Amino acid sequence: MRSDATQYVRFPSGQGYPVAFRPLSALADSMREVGLRPGRVLVVSDRNVANLYAKPVDQTLQADGWEPRVLALPPGETTKTPEHLQAIYDAALTWGIDRKTPIVALGGGVIGDLAGFAAATLLRGVPLVHVPTTLLAQVDSALGGKTGINHATGKNLVGAFYQPSLVLSDLHTLATLPEREWNSGSAEVVKHAIIGDQRLFDLLTESWGQFAVRDIDTTREVLRRACQVKIDIVSRDEREQGPRAFLNFGHTFGHALEAATEYETLAHGEAVAIGMRAALYLSRRYNPKLNYAELDALVSRIPAPPIPADIALGEVMQAMRTDKKAESGRLRFILVKRIGSPYVTDQIAAADVEAAWRHVLVT
Amino acid sequence: MRSDATQYVRFPSGQGYPVAFRPLSALADSMREVGLRPGRVLVVSDRNVANLYAKPVDQTLQADGWEPRVLALPPGETTKTPEHLQAIYDAALTWGIDRKTPIVALGGGVIGDLAGFAAATLLRGVPLVHVPTTLLAQVDSALGGKTGINHATGKNLVGAFYQPSLVLSDLHTLATLPEREWNSGSAEVVKHAIIGDQRLFDLLTESWGQFAVRDIDTTREVLRRACQVKIDIVSRDEREQGPRAFLNFGHTFGHALEAATEYETLAHGEAVAIGMRAALYLSRRYNPKLNYAELDALVSRIPAPPIPADIALGEVMQAMRTDKKAESGRLRFILVKRIGSPYVTDQIAAADVEAAWRHVLVT
Repeated sequence: MRSDATQYVRFPSGQGYPVAFRPLSALADSMREVGLRPGRVLVVSDRNVANLYAKPVDQTLQADGWEPRVLALPPGETTKTPEHLQAIYDAALTWGIDRKTPIVALGGGVIGDLAGFAAATLLRGVPLVHVPTTLLAQVDSALGGKTGINHATGKNLVGAFYQPSLVLSDLHTLATLPEREWNSGSAEVVKHAIIGDQRLFDLLTESWGQFAVRDIDTTREVLRRACQVKIDIVSRDEREQGPRAFLNFGHTFGHALEAATEYETLAHGEAVAIGMRAALYLSRRYNPKLNYAELDALVSRIPAPPIPADIALGEVMQAMRTDKKAESGRLRFILVKRIGSPYVTDQIAAADVEAAWRHVLVT
Repeated sequence: MRSDATQYVRFPSGQGYPVAFRPLSALADSMREVGLRPGRVLVVSDRNVANLYAKPVDQTLQADGWEPRVLALPPGETTKTPEHLQAIYDAALTWGIDRKTPIVALGGGVIGDLAGFAAATLLRGVPLVHVPTTLLAQVDSALGGKTGINHATGKNLVGAFYQPSLVLSDLHTLATLPEREWNSGSAEVVKHAIIGDQRLFDLLTESWGQFAVRDIDTTREVLRRACQVKIDIVSRDEREQGPRAFLNFGHTFGHALEAATEYETLAHGEAVAIGMRAALYLSRRYNPKLNYAELDALVSRIPAPPIPADIALGEVMQAMRTDKKAESGRLRFILVKRIGSPYVTDQIAAADVEAAWRHVLVT
């Protein structure tokens, strides 16, 4: 397989977009290939990522005749607010853009969600190019078209489905990723293996050591397979009406943990890693033949800080009930029968949910 | 034709929605017909409209098992801001909605655009029901899925294409419409006749007197035909890639006038009425056989205040150039060859544009 092999999200409508693993220096060429023509382009990033990668991105764009402008926002989840969204609107509209001016989202999940939502809503939609620079964004958040910001009552409660014209991921940007962000992304990789790809699961089990030290060949193969799981699911379900729910494996628990710890103690993927342990425990309760030990062993290799001792069962149960995915009051869970066979259920006894929580809270 | 005859927007994808002229008391039944099931429903309105119509809407919804809540915002264009959008988000999310909770936009174009954008972006999209109560909204803004808010640099610069589940228009709400709002809406009616329907044009020419006094039978027939022009165009062009541009007849001039008068002197439709006179003048310059006198006579019957004497040619020309529709710097105009034959052109000499402006500015 060539290192720049391109994968494609393709919707039943016939529309879609390429997901390419290529160096940042190939950005301008890649934009040309999807039909974007040089003019103004607004690059939205955060200060950490901009310090590292704004210059090469700016250079490749200028060399191809683009007129780039970089907007560097503060790093971190607290940037996903109406105020920073407005900052993007202001930068774009006071500069002067038209409906063909692309937004390039250069950064992790926060920048992708925020700049993606800005692209979805500026002039009722301008072209969007995702250049994810974190593991989580490359394997998960930049794929599938979810964009949005947070609200005081919860994460991602305001947003839109908006598909990019292109996703370009440079594996080399992962070298500079802080340890906890790498771990956070690896949780989504493991999730994709569990819900969709036995071979990826086996690869991770066998090669966890090389993956954990970011060996480039292992990472490339792992990411290709992990992206394909997500691509297959979102291609079948652009707007989250069906199988896309499987991507929330571990997330019902994970979101509740994030909320209960006020988004301070745990990174998203760390919360998902713990959430997957609870979801596996619950899966075994309803699927006694599940190869639980093997699954739990891989999930347990994802490093995550301990849950603070003062987080009580009542808190996480309450946080679960106020999550936006609790449609019409019933809690929905994604469980697995076996690797590659997830299913959605709202027929779970509260006592079993509590038992799953106790399994991870006491650890 | 039955008075509740329902028209349909149908996209090539097969998706679409009904546009029904029915009394407000039929709202709950109509929502049921499009598959919405009782639960919470957030009715967004402005204080003027809510005073008149929130109660009957609330009653019909409650009688069918809905749990409505009414959010009444200040009336007027200045409500189309990020702050009022946030007020809708806050009301919806602190109350607790899920992805099936509809937003009902009860009011004119401002409420439709604002509440529509909120529906487009709450939980990445909840069902939207338009209940337009102004002539402009019934015949134009509630049809076609444009939603959005204003930005300091211009109107409607932030928004989304988002299709409603249902448009329900009660002709009787037009009885309470202030005179200038009626006039504003009648400009869009005339526009639809000029770009798409000779018979509507003839009907308006013959029956202007009855229409101007809001005779219910004349109004019903005029609105049915005017809506059909818009429905035909948006059905062919959901996202404004092609023929939808024709709906901007008179608007390149009109928007510039609104901007130059800081959105204070002229209502939108009044500016469009004047803009159409300029667009007709320009159309004749490039289409000498146009039956200009007949067209100008009908447009001139739409009452509009005089343009303030201190508005100079330079100002409106500059305002035109900064309009968002000026893609890649070239001004685009919608002109007409004859009734029902609009076309888009960016091949217009500046001197001719100025002559068209002088024609309306000196009047």
